[in-house]
Amino acid sequence: MAAFLSFSLLVGSAFAAIRRQDISSKITGAEYAVRGEIVIMSQEIEKELASGNHSYSFDKLIACNIGNPQAVGQEPLTYHRQVLSLLTNPSTIDDAEKTGRYPTDVIARAREFTPAVKFGAYTHSKGAAIFREKIADYIHTRDGSVLPRPDTENIYITDGASKGIQLILELMVTDEKDVILIPIPQYPLYSATVTRLGGTWVGYEMKEDYSASSPAWELDLSVIEKLYKEEVKKGNRVRGIVIINPGNPTGNILSRSNLEDLLKFCEQRDVSILADEVYQENIYSPQKSFVSMREVVLAKQSKVELFSFHSISKGYYGECGLRGGYMELLNVAPDVNDEIYKLSSMTLCSNTLAQAMTASILHPPQPGSPSGPLFQKEKNAILDGLKRKAILVEKELNKIHGYNVMPIEGAMYAFPMVRLPKKYIEHAEQQGSLADSQYCKDLLKALGVIMVPGNGFGQRANTFHFRMTILPKESDLVAMLKGLTTFQHDLYAKYGDPDKEKIEL
Amino acid sequence: MAAFLSFSLLVGSAFAAIRRQDISSKITGAEYAVRGEIVIMSQEIEKELASGNHSYSFDKLIACNIGNPQAVGQEPLTYHRQVLSLLTNPSTIDDAEKTGRYPTDVIARAREFTPAVKFGAYTHSKGAAIFREKIADYIHTRDGSVLPRPDTENIYITDGASKGIQLILELMVTDEKDVILIPIPQYPLYSATVTRLGGTWVGYEMKEDYSASSPAWELDLSVIEKLYKEEVKKGNRVRGIVIINPGNPTGNILSRSNLEDLLKFCEQRDVSILADEVYQENIYSPQKSFVSMREVVLAKQSKVELFSFHSISKGYYGECGLRGGYMELLNVAPDVNDEIYKLSSMTLCSNTLAQAMTASILHPPQPGSPSGPLFQKEKNAILDGLKRKAILVEKELNKIHGYNVMPIEGAMYAFPMVRLPKKYIEHAEQQGSLADSQYCKDLLKALGVIMVPGNGFGQRANTFHFRMTILPKESDLVAMLKGLTTFQHDLYAKYGDPDKEKIEL
Repeated sequence: MAAFLSFSLLVGSAFAAIRRQDISSKITGAEYAVRGEIVIMSQEIEKELASGNHSYSFDKLIACNIGNPQAVGQEPLTYHRQVLSLLTNPSTIDDAEKTGRYPTDVIARAREFTPAVKFGAYTHSKGAAIFREKIADYIHTRDGSVLPRPDTENIYITDGASKGIQLILELMVTDEKDVILIPIPQYPLYSATVTRLGGTWVGYEMKEDYSASSPAWELDLSVIEKLYKEEVKKGNRVRGIVIINPGNPTGNILSRSNLEDLLKFCEQRDVSILADEVYQENIYSPQKSFVSMREVVLAKQSKVELFSFHSISKGYYGECGLRGGYMELLNVAPDVNDEIYKLSSMTLCSNTLAQAMTASILHPPQPGSPSGPLFQKEKNAILDGLKRKAILVEKELNKIHGYNVMPIEGAMYAFPMVRLPKKYIEHAEQQGSLADSQYCKDLLKALGVIMVPGNGFGQRANTFHFRMTILPKESDLVAMLKGLTTFQHDLYAKYGDPDKEKIEL
Repeated sequence: MAAFLSFSLLVGSAFAAIRRQDISSKITGAEYAVRGEIVIMSQEIEKELASGNHSYSFDKLIACNIGNPQAVGQEPLTYHRQVLSLLTNPSTIDDAEKTGRYPTDVIARAREFTPAVKFGAYTHSKGAAIFREKIADYIHTRDGSVLPRPDTENIYITDGASKGIQLILELMVTDEKDVILIPIPQYPLYSATVTRLGGTWVGYEMKEDYSASSPAWELDLSVIEKLYKEEVKKGNRVRGIVIINPGNPTGNILSRSNLEDLLKFCEQRDVSILADEVYQENIYSPQKSFVSMREVVLAKQSKVELFSFHSISKGYYGECGLRGGYMELLNVAPDVNDEIYKLSSMTLCSNTLAQAMTASILHPPQPGSPSGPLFQKEKNAILDGLKRKAILVEKELNKIHGYNVMPIEGAMYAFPMVRLPKKYIEHAEQQGSLADSQYCKDLLKALGVIMVPGNGFGQRANTFHFRMTILPKESDLVAMLKGLTTFQHDLYAKYGDPDKEKIEL
């Protein structure tokens, strides 16, 4: 051992088989702002707050940075969690029935799911057949039963939507010649994943015109077509286009006609669609309804390849921690499906409990069933609260001088544009920050509010935004909106009002 | 719409934005035999058996293809599942305590874990702090508390071990110049992932000498050193070496001195270690004990980078479906750790329930606690059963003419070598199959036993093996081993005895 130790000391601490500079630029270049710099800063502040020894004007942080409802007070739905607690320990089902501890429809579902599925065992890599059947039923009902029912071979149950999205992007991207069109603003999983895979992502700006009569954050097909042609001219191949509907971070809902226009483009240009529809049950605008991309493709009898994604992390259920979701393939060649299956099988299967919860959540108790009334009450309370907060946030943000925000029609977010004075932009530059990042950092320190700067999602050049969730409880939101008003007023007082800059010059 | 439809028809079915030939050869070239051809064939047979209309000599399949204990009858451990059922529905904890439905140590753990963690919310991307602390305690105790306790910043809770392994390989592989050394035979996740990432994997053969006194499936450092030099000569960079200990598919346990030799090589050659230690609690040989790679690295005060992986899918707990596990980083630079954190954060976090189960399973109830006796009984029954089956399978396989198998010291597998006659190899070729694949297909059809052919794991040239688990119940194993004897006898009767081929020539 002595000989060995001396050898070890000889070569000593020079060893580091992986240095950061050795890591592929695909990885180091990938940016994921949702859990980036501001979040790390907030974790530091959290520690200071916990210590009690701090000079902040607040005692707690308000997390507006992530769509994580149960982290900010939303309670899980009773029915599904009762089912889940039986599935985790099936030996208690009989006792729960005998003692009447759980309603009979909870017992019935637990008996339906177990022993059909052994939750401690790997399932089929696409997910247990019984759950894929339930998902197929949900999709079939949602899109209208005149349309064909999904083939369960085309359904993959995934650990949240993100895992499915990564898998499909991997399939599409071989090298930097492969282009994915991504909305701007976007959810940064898309740009980060395409970068990580060594592909090229090109952002298409959605319509952002606060004076116009056109719907908020509509897809602009002329922009998409122009970018497509530019990429083709470069010798690149546009493989897929991403839509997020309802929008993250934009909170808009795409209309049927807008989706039909997109479909025409994709048919003409042989481009696949990735439809991120995880907010399909978060609809607040009475004038709008959710139309699935699948329904549009099928109604038009189109052969465009569609990959659609859903999740149990969002909606009114908000079960982020369980990591459940699914993807559905439409018009995808069987031998391509085989490759997707092979890739999925390498990590065996998604977690079985969230598989069951995905199936259960998409088939909630019906009005006449024992759990129906409580379920309806809980669901309505959550959705009504979100609706109220969507209206509140839109209204109050638009009152703040220097802010503009589109209607929050769906999803869980506002993406206000903030006009920032030149001097503040320069001040940020001096700190080595982009102005919107600096704005979020200053907001965090002044109000204890965690927001994500617009540059993390992409925004039109020379504009500044931030994304905030509408999830905190209403009293917190009211206080925060008040704080924002003062903060913005003080900022303009210190750095000048950008609306007056031209006159001042 | 009419105009649109006619447009759609015009371009018609020519559309397929992703054809298989468009998919990167990294993906199509990746092979993952554990869920490959034989498994698909078994799914077809399963359907025939279920229909009742079949001509097989068996009525059920025996799954020896995958380490999935609860799929073949192993029951989950009562204590941990009781805890889990409370965590999924924390509102029942009070009632469970009041009624005495669950033992007090179950209640205590549920109260410790919730509300500290909200299971419906995303956690820190490395996993909830409380669970990482528990994992650190486990590792610290396992390796001896004279060694430093792990820093929880170096622990990532993952959805099974596979996810962590993929992440670290992604970090190491930029292009085909990056080489990962992989044991032969190996668990095919490694070769498949390196291929998928566009890197190069080089297999190092472990010692397989049925007549020798050297331990079964030892690492042969001279082989590894030789391969290393060849790769360097080619201008390639050897980034990491994988060890699987206890071995999959080999069922061996690596000795401390063998691990020390590996460490010397890695120090000298600046190579990182990926230590797959998911079978660390599956130890059957009374002469052997598990030594973690971490203990060896720390005891030698080495600076070699180590990534070690563990899982709740294996051991005596076998909770495959929950998808829980962790990886620990040792000697990894902080800015490299930051990149790992960023990649992890893109899919937000691993599933919270398996996070909790990972922490709980690594801290089972102690002998004096209310759940202690039942837990010990269950644990012993499982481990004793596995030990008996390990001995049974080794003994019976070695009795079969044409078979050789090493002692099953740990893990869950036997990897017997089968001598196959020339005529059978030619017969397989005519079917377009490798001989060991054909052997497994014929076995499946004759006995209803699912095995994975050796070529899925890698084997010395001109040798044939298959992997079988020792998980089925003993009566099934006994019947199966008897069936194998007859099958092998009949095969030699039909195609000739390879041991006599030289004489016959």
